[in-house]
Amino acid sequence: RVVVHGGRTGCAAGSVSEPTDIVISLERMNAIEEVDSIGHAVVVQAGVILEALQSRVAEDDLFLPLDLGARGSCTVGGNIATNAGGVNVIRYGMVRNLVLGLEIVLPDGGVISSMKRMLKDNSGYDLKQLFIGSEGTLGVVTRAILKLEPAFSRRDTALAAVASFKDVTRLLSLSKSRLGASLTSYELMWGDYYRAVTTGLGVRSPVDATHEFYVLIETESCDGEAGRDIFMELLEKAISDGLIKDGVFAQSEQERREIWRIRDDFEPILREKPVYLFDVSMPIQTMDRYIDTVRRGLASVSRDAILHVFGHIGDGNLHLFVHPGAGEIASGGETRKRVEACVYEPLREIEGSVSAEHGIGREKKRWLSVSRSANEIAMMKTLKRSIDPKNILNPGVVFDL
Amino acid sequence: RVVVHGGRTGCAAGSVSEPTDIVISLERMNAIEEVDSIGHAVVVQAGVILEALQSRVAEDDLFLPLDLGARGSCTVGGNIATNAGGVNVIRYGMVRNLVLGLEIVLPDGGVISSMKRMLKDNSGYDLKQLFIGSEGTLGVVTRAILKLEPAFSRRDTALAAVASFKDVTRLLSLSKSRLGASLTSYELMWGDYYRAVTTGLGVRSPVDATHEFYVLIETESCDGEAGRDIFMELLEKAISDGLIKDGVFAQSEQERREIWRIRDDFEPILREKPVYLFDVSMPIQTMDRYIDTVRRGLASVSRDAILHVFGHIGDGNLHLFVHPGAGEIASGGETRKRVEACVYEPLREIEGSVSAEHGIGREKKRWLSVSRSANEIAMMKTLKRSIDPKNILNPGVVFDL
Repeated sequence: RVVVHGGRTGCAAGSVSEPTDIVISLERMNAIEEVDSIGHAVVVQAGVILEALQSRVAEDDLFLPLDLGARGSCTVGGNIATNAGGVNVIRYGMVRNLVLGLEIVLPDGGVISSMKRMLKDNSGYDLKQLFIGSEGTLGVVTRAILKLEPAFSRRDTALAAVASFKDVTRLLSLSKSRLGASLTSYELMWGDYYRAVTTGLGVRSPVDATHEFYVLIETESCDGEAGRDIFMELLEKAISDGLIKDGVFAQSEQERREIWRIRDDFEPILREKPVYLFDVSMPIQTMDRYIDTVRRGLASVSRDAILHVFGHIGDGNLHLFVHPGAGEIASGGETRKRVEACVYEPLREIEGSVSAEHGIGREKKRWLSVSRSANEIAMMKTLKRSIDPKNILNPGVVFDL
Repeated sequence: RVVVHGGRTGCAAGSVSEPTDIVISLERMNAIEEVDSIGHAVVVQAGVILEALQSRVAEDDLFLPLDLGARGSCTVGGNIATNAGGVNVIRYGMVRNLVLGLEIVLPDGGVISSMKRMLKDNSGYDLKQLFIGSEGTLGVVTRAILKLEPAFSRRDTALAAVASFKDVTRLLSLSKSRLGASLTSYELMWGDYYRAVTTGLGVRSPVDATHEFYVLIETESCDGEAGRDIFMELLEKAISDGLIKDGVFAQSEQERREIWRIRDDFEPILREKPVYLFDVSMPIQTMDRYIDTVRRGLASVSRDAILHVFGHIGDGNLHLFVHPGAGEIASGGETRKRVEACVYEPLREIEGSVSAEHGIGREKKRWLSVSRSANEIAMMKTLKRSIDPKNILNPGVVFDL
């Protein structure tokens, strides 16, 4: 049994090993082999730390459109093996969309080298797609060629308070149609989350803290002041339409960082242990009702359960933090199972997913059937058996054979 | 043996049937089931004609970011089965990037229904990726959910004459960095192609017709005059830097269509039969040298061979039209093989692909090894055998088992 280690920052227990397992660390395969500034691509080994790669390509005025909280320790190989998401998916897609070429070592030691750098290549099955996001169960990612973009010249950020979820979706539609592809983030914080983080961090809230919802909107543009002007016009329109009740536009990188800190630094929410983190996705029009359903379910599990929510809602992705309240330790884990049921079961009806970006790992495999039909899971097992017939690679991750 | 028919507009003989084959036509599965104007997605059956879908979503101020010459007769199912490309790939990617959900009928009659509409879903292997672009050999695409974008409000188009290939790549880099994601087309015509089409169609060339290269640049924007202003600034900068020698900016939809007609309507090139059409891709920095190599090779095959080239070069994709000159009919097909060798063999060294967007079909399968290693082809066959053990679906397409 072979378990591969990247930066070990995964959130779904996907690279946990047992005492008798062989662990392969890719830590020393950390070369950035080539930055192709004409073709806008970079050739990397799997062990490169994401942040190191971001910095290196920036030296050539290029931009890697992948960013996530674990940037300082996660590796590119792990990002590919788990099809990582992050904060720019609304504009650039998941890691899958950035992988031009891939080198994979198979369970029998054979090497699949598809290290091409073209955007377009329809010569037979696109094999790399099968390995991206397979969580170490089909092959070992060793090298890759990733797509780059030209560095953008300016970034503008606003924080807006919104009165209802319906207005949140209206503001999203308006933002998409006015900002087009310059819209790179549309992050929603529920009011409880916003207040818990601002109070817990002891930071001054830049807008009135009593609203129902807070949206962080960010744009990237390449065109002097024009990008900001378009963004400002959107905000003025949204205010005059009543979609935005209160707001602030970052006037400096310092102010931008203060706004992002409220979204990123959920440390205050983790203080009262235990806290269970969830990563679900669903059609955006079902989100509001879904959260109500979860909230009601949690109340029936524990009278003092606490739910905090934020999400990359432009991508249909919510992160839920649940503190189950008192009584957890006494129940020996039964509470956790009941909390999971509250979060996952309502996804069946609305055709949601138990994992938007974190993956299934070992942690969620018993909930896989919420997102995937029996035929889909049977096909996954067929593929696993044909590529890894001895079940060597990361057995027990995603599903049990 | 089962062959599936969509619009039968493929360019690689991928849906050719033999007298004893069973043909499945999806012509009557042509419902557009739902346009989701909040979630920006559309639920369609496989037999929907691409142009009908484009028109339908436009009624809801939405935009399907897929367009190609066969729009009036190709079907969405065929577009997915072949991972179609087209004229907007530089901005929106191939069809693969637009498929949120997919329903597939397997060779044993089982149905894989992954009809989810979220941008993010990492719950297990992303099975649909394996079927997209598999050219009817692994399953039958019956329904899909495709991603939509808000309709853009303006489109601007320019035609620029450029003196050298190096300047073509410089202009591309400048365009990408100045225009960002509003750049939707960057189409290059070699001078010979440009002159053959304008002369053959009897149209007045909007710019001097004696230049080496002609680039069609198009942008989409959502923001009044600002988009055009940014585009004009780019063009002025490129002219003052000497990258553009001559140019025209379309002042009306009529003028825009006249420019596109030169790029699209290659009928004059097809007049002298036979003409072989090729669809190759390669790293952009190798393109110029590659075309020189092909030209030299063709000259050794036939003294009067004619080569015309245009391409979606922002995507690394070139289309070559070769008229082998006199003597073809006499040689009984040998000339064609020699022409194919001239076009495909030089791709090995530069790590190019024998098919950027048309697919392998039956036509190119003997050249598959130029683009793919023995291990890659072996893996394709492993997958084919595990999903279609009786080799029922489109046997003999992509490879022979």
